[in-house]
Amino acid sequence: LNIAVLPGDGIGPEIVEQAKKSLDAVLKKKGHEANYTEAPVGAVAIDQTGDPYPEETHQICMNADAVLFGAIGDPKYDNDPKAKVRPEQGLLAMRKKLGLYANIRPVTTFPSLIHKSPLRSDLVDGADFVAIRELTGGIYFGRPQGRSEDGRTAYDTNVYTVEEIERITRLAFDFAMKRRKKLTVVDKANVLATSRLWRETVQAIAPDFLEVEVEYMFVDNAAMQIIQWPKRFDVMLTENMFGDILTDEASVITGSLGLLPSASIGVHTSVFEPIHGSYPQAAGKNIANPLATILSAALMLESAFNLKEEANMIRTAVEASLEQGKVTEDIDKSNALSTSEVGDWIAE
Amino acid sequence: LNIAVLPGDGIGPEIVEQAKKSLDAVLKKKGHEANYTEAPVGAVAIDQTGDPYPEETHQICMNADAVLFGAIGDPKYDNDPKAKVRPEQGLLAMRKKLGLYANIRPVTTFPSLIHKSPLRSDLVDGADFVAIRELTGGIYFGRPQGRSEDGRTAYDTNVYTVEEIERITRLAFDFAMKRRKKLTVVDKANVLATSRLWRETVQAIAPDFLEVEVEYMFVDNAAMQIIQWPKRFDVMLTENMFGDILTDEASVITGSLGLLPSASIGVHTSVFEPIHGSYPQAAGKNIANPLATILSAALMLESAFNLKEEANMIRTAVEASLEQGKVTEDIDKSNALSTSEVGDWIAE
Ligand SMILES: CC(C)[C@H](C(=O)O)[C@@H](O)C(=O)O
Ligand SMILES: CC(C)[C@H](C(=O)O)[C@@H](O)C(=O)O
Repeated sequence: LNIAVLPGDGIGPEIVEQAKKSLDAVLKKKGHEANYTEAPVGAVAIDQTGDPYPEETHQICMNADAVLFGAIGDPKYDNDPKAKVRPEQGLLAMRKKLGLYANIRPVTTFPSLIHKSPLRSDLVDGADFVAIRELTGGIYFGRPQGRSEDGRTAYDTNVYTVEEIERITRLAFDFAMKRRKKLTVVDKANVLATSRLWRETVQAIAPDFLEVEVEYMFVDNAAMQIIQWPKRFDVMLTENMFGDILTDEASVITGSLGLLPSASIGVHTSVFEPIHGSYPQAAGKNIANPLATILSAALMLESAFNLKEEANMIRTAVEASLEQGKVTEDIDKSNALSTSEVGDWIAE
Repeated sequence: LNIAVLPGDGIGPEIVEQAKKSLDAVLKKKGHEANYTEAPVGAVAIDQTGDPYPEETHQICMNADAVLFGAIGDPKYDNDPKAKVRPEQGLLAMRKKLGLYANIRPVTTFPSLIHKSPLRSDLVDGADFVAIRELTGGIYFGRPQGRSEDGRTAYDTNVYTVEEIERITRLAFDFAMKRRKKLTVVDKANVLATSRLWRETVQAIAPDFLEVEVEYMFVDNAAMQIIQWPKRFDVMLTENMFGDILTDEASVITGSLGLLPSASIGVHTSVFEPIHGSYPQAAGKNIANPLATILSAALMLESAFNLKEEANMIRTAVEASLEQGKVTEDIDKSNALSTSEVGDWIAE
C-alpha cells in the first residue's frame, strides 16, 4: 500500500502517528505492507518552503494510492485577512490539483459519547447519515474574484458546470444505493442560478436510480432540520459553500466531533483526514484524541484499497477502546490516557 | 400610527389578525390609534394581479410608518425551479424596493418552552442574542447571474460595497452598545473576497466603538458554535446568504420557533414579521400560533414608533399567556386554545 502521509500542523503529527500504528498492526496481521512517504503541508510547509502545498508534496500525493492527512492551520496566520500566504491556501491548492471533487463525511453516533452531544439524546441516538460536499467548484474557485479599481467593491463568483454536478451526483446516488436509499439534495434554488442547475441535473440523473427517493431541501431549512431531526437524513448532497457550513454543523450534533473521519475522493488520488482542526493549543502535549485519524485510516483501507475486513478490525478496536474507557482527556478527564497510549492500545 | 398590513399566504391572515387585536388594545389604553391599510403580497398577490409584490402594495408600504407582515409561500410553487413567477420573488422585490438592508432577529429563551428545544436545556437556558443579517446585497442580488449560452454552466455573483457594509455595521455596533457590548462578525475571509472587504470595513469602524469587543468568526465555525455554546453570542453580524442559513439555524435552538419576531430595517420604512413560514397545512384552521406575530407587533411599537411601554405591555401579556397555558396546540396539545382565542386572551 503506497500511502502519502501529510501530518501538517498542530496536533497533526501526533495523531497521524497513531493512525500508522493501527494500519501497521492490521496490515501485518493480514500479510500486507504499507509504504509511507511523508511530506509537509500547511504552515509547516510555508516555514520550510514558502508554499503551503509545495510541488514536491504534490508529486508525492500524485504517486500515492491514497493520502493520509492530519490537519493544518496555525494561530499566527489567524485574523490576518491580508496575509499573503496562508495554510488554507495549501488545502485549496491540494483539492484543486488532486481533483478532490467529493468530500464525504459520515455522521455517526457512538453510544458511549451521546451524553457529550449538545442535542437531546433521543434526537441523536441512532443518527447515521453521510454528507457529501462538492469540493472543487462553486464560489471557492469561481472567477472573477477581487476588488473594483477603487477598492470599494468586492466580488466573488459562484460557478458550476453540468459535468461537475453530474460526477458528484452519481457518486451520491451510489452511496444512497448502498445505504437506506434516500438522497437529500440541499440548495437554494429559489435564489441561485447555480442551484437551479444543480436541481435540473439531479432531476435528469434520478431516473437512473429509481430505487432512491430524492428530496430537495433549501439550505436554510437543512440548517434547521440537521438539529431538529437528524435521523431523517441518509445521504445529503450539496455544493461547496453550503457543504462547508452544513458538514461542520452536522459534525457537532452527535457529540463525536473528535471521532469523525472524512474522505475526499479525487480524480488522481483520495485524501483521508479527521474533520477536526489542528488544535494548536494541544500541539506537542500528547493529549489530543487520535480516534478520528485512526478511523480515517480505516476509511482509507475500505475506500482506497477495498480492504473491508481490515477496516472493520480497526473500527472494532476503536469501539472497544471507547467501551473500556481507554480514551483521551476530551472524553474522560479523570481517567485519561495520552494520545500515544490510546494509539498503542488500539494497535495492540 | 400609519401601518401597512400585508397578511400574505397560508396562516398569514389569521396570525396578523391577532396581532392587530393586541396593538389596538394597548394603543387604545394609551390614547393612540392605529390606521391599517391592507395589501396583498406573495401567492395571494400572484393570484390577484400576477405579481407577488404589486406596485400598489409597494406604494402602500412607502406611505406607511411601518409594515406588519404575515408570511408568504404556497405549496403549488414548491419544487418547481422553473416557475416563472414565485411568491419569494415578491419578498426579494419588497426588500430591494423598500431598501430593507438589515434583518434583525432576536433569539430569546422562554423558560416555559425550553423543554421544546432540541438542545440540552443547560446549553440554551438564558441564551439571548441578536442576529443581524444584511438583506439587500450579496449573492441574492449580485449580477451577472444566469447560464452560459449552451446552458451547461450556471453562475451567480456575490457583491458588496463598502457603503453597504458600513451602514449595517454601524447599526450592529449600536445594538451591541445597548446590550452586552460584544459583536461577532461572521464571514469566510479565508476564501471570499467579499468577506475580506467585510472584515476590513468592520475593522475600520471598530475604533468608533471602543467599548465593544469585536470578534471575527468563520461561518463554518459559527454554524457549530450556535449549537455548542449559544450563550457566547450577544450580537452576531453577517452577510445575506450566511445570514439566511445561520438565522434559521439559530431560530430552532431555544425551542421558541413559533414565538420569534423579526424586524427588517429599511431606508424607506421597516417591516415586522414572524420568522416562521406560511405553514400552509394549518391555513384556515384557526390552530396556528400567533405569538411570533404578536411579538413582531411589539417589536414594531418599540423600533418604529418608540413606544417602549406599549411594546412591553404586549410582551408581558404574551409571557402571562405562556405561564397560564393559554396557548395553541403546538405548545400544549391536550389543552390547546385556538389561534383567535389566544389572540383574544392576550388583547384582553
Ligand atoms: C480552511 C478552509 C478553507 C476549509 C474550507 O472552507 O473548505 C475548511 O473550513 C474545511 O471545511 O475544510
Ligand atoms: C424565501 C427566501 C427567498 C428567503 C431568503 O432566503 O431570504 C427566506 O428564506 C428568508 O430567510 O426570508
